[in-house]
Amino acid sequence: MLLVASNRAPLAFEEDAGGRVVARRGAGGLVTALAGALQRSGGLWVASAMTEQDREQSARGDLAVAGEEPRFEAGEASEPAGARAAYRVRYLSFDRETFDRYYNGVSNEILWFLHHQLWDVPRWPRFSEETRRSWDAYREINDAFAGALDEAAAGSGPEPVFLIQDYHLSLTPALLRARRPRARVVHFSHVPFAGPSYLSVVPEPMRSEHLAGLLGADVVGFHTVRWAESFLMDCRELPGAGVDLRRRRIRWDGRTVRVGVYPIAIDVEQLEGASSALEVAEAKKLLLGMKGDRRLLIRVDRTDLSKNILRGFLAYEEFLRARSDWRGKVVFLALLNPSRQEVPDYRDYLQDCVRLAERINGDLGADDWRPIELSIEDDLSRVAAAYEIYDALLVNPVFDGMNLVAKEGPTLNRSNGVLILSENAGAHAELGTHALSISPFDVGATAAAIAEALEMDPRERARRARGLTTAIRRNRLDGWVGRQLQDLDRTAGGRR
Amino acid sequence: MLLVASNRAPLAFEEDAGGRVVARRGAGGLVTALAGALQRSGGLWVASAMTEQDREQSARGDLAVAGEEPRFEAGEASEPAGARAAYRVRYLSFDRETFDRYYNGVSNEILWFLHHQLWDVPRWPRFSEETRRSWDAYREINDAFAGALDEAAAGSGPEPVFLIQDYHLSLTPALLRARRPRARVVHFSHVPFAGPSYLSVVPEPMRSEHLAGLLGADVVGFHTVRWAESFLMDCRELPGAGVDLRRRRIRWDGRTVRVGVYPIAIDVEQLEGASSALEVAEAKKLLLGMKGDRRLLIRVDRTDLSKNILRGFLAYEEFLRARSDWRGKVVFLALLNPSRQEVPDYRDYLQDCVRLAERINGDLGADDWRPIELSIEDDLSRVAAAYEIYDALLVNPVFDGMNLVAKEGPTLNRSNGVLILSENAGAHAELGTHALSISPFDVGATAAAIAEALEMDPRERARRARGLTTAIRRNRLDGWVGRQLQDLDRTAGGRR
Repeated sequence: MLLVASNRAPLAFEEDAGGRVVARRGAGGLVTALAGALQRSGGLWVASAMTEQDREQSARGDLAVAGEEPRFEAGEASEPAGARAAYRVRYLSFDRETFDRYYNGVSNEILWFLHHQLWDVPRWPRFSEETRRSWDAYREINDAFAGALDEAAAGSGPEPVFLIQDYHLSLTPALLRARRPRARVVHFSHVPFAGPSYLSVVPEPMRSEHLAGLLGADVVGFHTVRWAESFLMDCRELPGAGVDLRRRRIRWDGRTVRVGVYPIAIDVEQLEGASSALEVAEAKKLLLGMKGDRRLLIRVDRTDLSKNILRGFLAYEEFLRARSDWRGKVVFLALLNPSRQEVPDYRDYLQDCVRLAERINGDLGADDWRPIELSIEDDLSRVAAAYEIYDALLVNPVFDGMNLVAKEGPTLNRSNGVLILSENAGAHAELGTHALSISPFDVGATAAAIAEALEMDPRERARRARGLTTAIRRNRLDGWVGRQLQDLDRTAGGRR
Repeated sequence: MLLVASNRAPLAFEEDAGGRVVARRGAGGLVTALAGALQRSGGLWVASAMTEQDREQSARGDLAVAGEEPRFEAGEASEPAGARAAYRVRYLSFDRETFDRYYNGVSNEILWFLHHQLWDVPRWPRFSEETRRSWDAYREINDAFAGALDEAAAGSGPEPVFLIQDYHLSLTPALLRARRPRARVVHFSHVPFAGPSYLSVVPEPMRSEHLAGLLGADVVGFHTVRWAESFLMDCRELPGAGVDLRRRRIRWDGRTVRVGVYPIAIDVEQLEGASSALEVAEAKKLLLGMKGDRRLLIRVDRTDLSKNILRGFLAYEEFLRARSDWRGKVVFLALLNPSRQEVPDYRDYLQDCVRLAERINGDLGADDWRPIELSIEDDLSRVAAAYEIYDALLVNPVFDGMNLVAKEGPTLNRSNGVLILSENAGAHAELGTHALSISPFDVGATAAAIAEALEMDPRERARRARGLTTAIRRNRLDGWVGRQLQDLDRTAGGRR
């Protein structure tokens, strides 16, 4: 049996056309991979109640998810799990202040900033008693997850496997092990991981507790060798940890912890299915109208500080200034999904992006040409349509655990579009050789890569596009969980 | 024979009371240590011409520094070195643009920011063709130093030892070795060193060239184990480098490079001598008048982004808010030496420090009490006087290679003053156990440390003060160069 824990549930409640609340399976490789594994082996997915509807469901009890059915009615599904239910979802409901401290105060404002190295260090962060209260709340919720997992495991027959996801739940592995010393636990970090020199921004005891929390697992997983190595090097500074860098093992608390690299894949079939929808065809028609006979450069991002939207626009400006022959012949479509707009830093960032795009459009545009087209909304059809027709895709995050845009774009693209890819995106490990690699901090090199992408010889474009899709499809999503379980067997197996 | 290279010369030209230009030896342990070693073995110190007077001297030829005489007239000293001259200083003069690119464009705006982790990563830095031109200038000047060293070594008899200082000259070791394959070279970094996760902010090929430049030395030295380890971990990502983390050795280009830890000491005698000057006694009288019967907390810093002045003031404010019984009974004297005021970031930072101090004084002060006394000038007498009488000294840099204030303060202090010390200052490795350790990012913990320092039991204060002075005096300045030369003999000796 599998027991999965993540902050966000694999389902979202929404109203259908008739006004009835239905639960819809979330999109994305992670949900597909974990839900697939749960469906095969049976089990439970524990998540935070994030919305009012989640909280209502939490009060009603576990939600049973039927077989391969990705869509169902909430009322029906909340009935006790029957034979056709393959797994259940349990929502953990917390009081608002505790949840806010755990989710915003620690997860998003500290751990996200830490591992993406987003702080303006001379001024931020500023830790305080407030932070310590938030850290206590973070620990409390991580422990509630541990408690729910432990409870679900009790009487489940043979010892189940726990799959704990991401930075929101970095303490849960150790807290679970305190309750269940023989638990078999995998933790997976979907973010990058800061090495020791940057990790030292976070004060003790939070710093050590964060690392020791993860070391409660038998297997600690990352998307790339680079993030795994950062974690290993961090652990070298943790008193009592014996780190074998070469074999990626850590002796800790009488156990051996294996640090593994499991780059996540995308759900190609789901993506292709979604892109065949009518709305996508309509969106494509609109985009083709906007594009005209110009070349199309796109970017697709949440407006997160890590996504490096400003330097992307500056690079495009530098390209247009250096290469005035390209003016009027290219459009940069930026599909930006607003993110964390309740956080001032994030609001400022989006505003700065809009202002910069307007400034560039004012300086370089003409009556019949806007150099940058901004689309600030969460419109998946538009994204899918843009993926199909781009000539170049700019993915230039300052740091990114994986970056799925770099995999989704080439999968749907039909124009042999060129991928310009940050060397600091996790996806670079798999796709770098077929992309134009850039340092995300190098505006000049990014400008040069835009020119190179737009002017690339068609045969070279086709060759690279084939390379990308081959590499993307070679990494099969259904192997992602399996490889973690295999390593778990080797590690925890040796222990018992 | 020793050949020393550093950006800044060990001498400064100034006018004496009679209006005559005299060369005065710079203060500080580095000059004392290197000049002492040069005086014993004879040799040459190569430096950049930074001022008009430096450039004039450069045109006149080498400047001979006589025996133990720290002060002499420029005219006289510029005569050919005679028997009593112990070493010479050679000024290298560069055209202004090249020098500006090397000194500001690269050394201070890139390498200083990199190793102190000072960038606001979502927005800065932005590398461009401009940066590449500056990097070329940096290489050119590093190569000019290599050329001057090589020339000075020619015909010097037995192969001399090259001691190359700091981040300004990170490429000189490799450029010197290209000219002189069997050169015996030590490079010493006086700054912290960023590990791989932050180093990746600097694009290739600069990143690798920076590391490979240092690896041109036989011994690469740092103030602490922590910075040495960061460098070793950085080199693990350099293709072709074989890193032995445990023994701190790197195989590179057919040679073995030793990474060493040599914490620099201060020149206790020089410091005590300077503090006995009449001006210090006068400054002390003024400070004692300002202090009255209040307790005195001080800080002494250049207004550098790395010094963390803002969080220091915020911590003091938090202390005063939490402990209103202390209002009117303590003064925070901030002795700030303006730094790099031609750089907008640095101007903004100093302004923000002043504004914050004024805001706190406005919010919490009274007619007869200003909580924070700001002194924004380069006044060494005032500093020496403040060192003598402080009750607590706050040294809270975000990152600092060593930090000499943490050593100078306790050496001159006569009040059993308590040292509050950032765990990210290099000095923490030697002094941490006798100081109150803080994370510089933890405003709450810094506030608590201020309270603890001011309220510490007299016996505990005395015990810690003794511990500090003992630790400071135990590290003898005259051993600093010797230990590097010893390691050089072991390393380069093995090679030949």
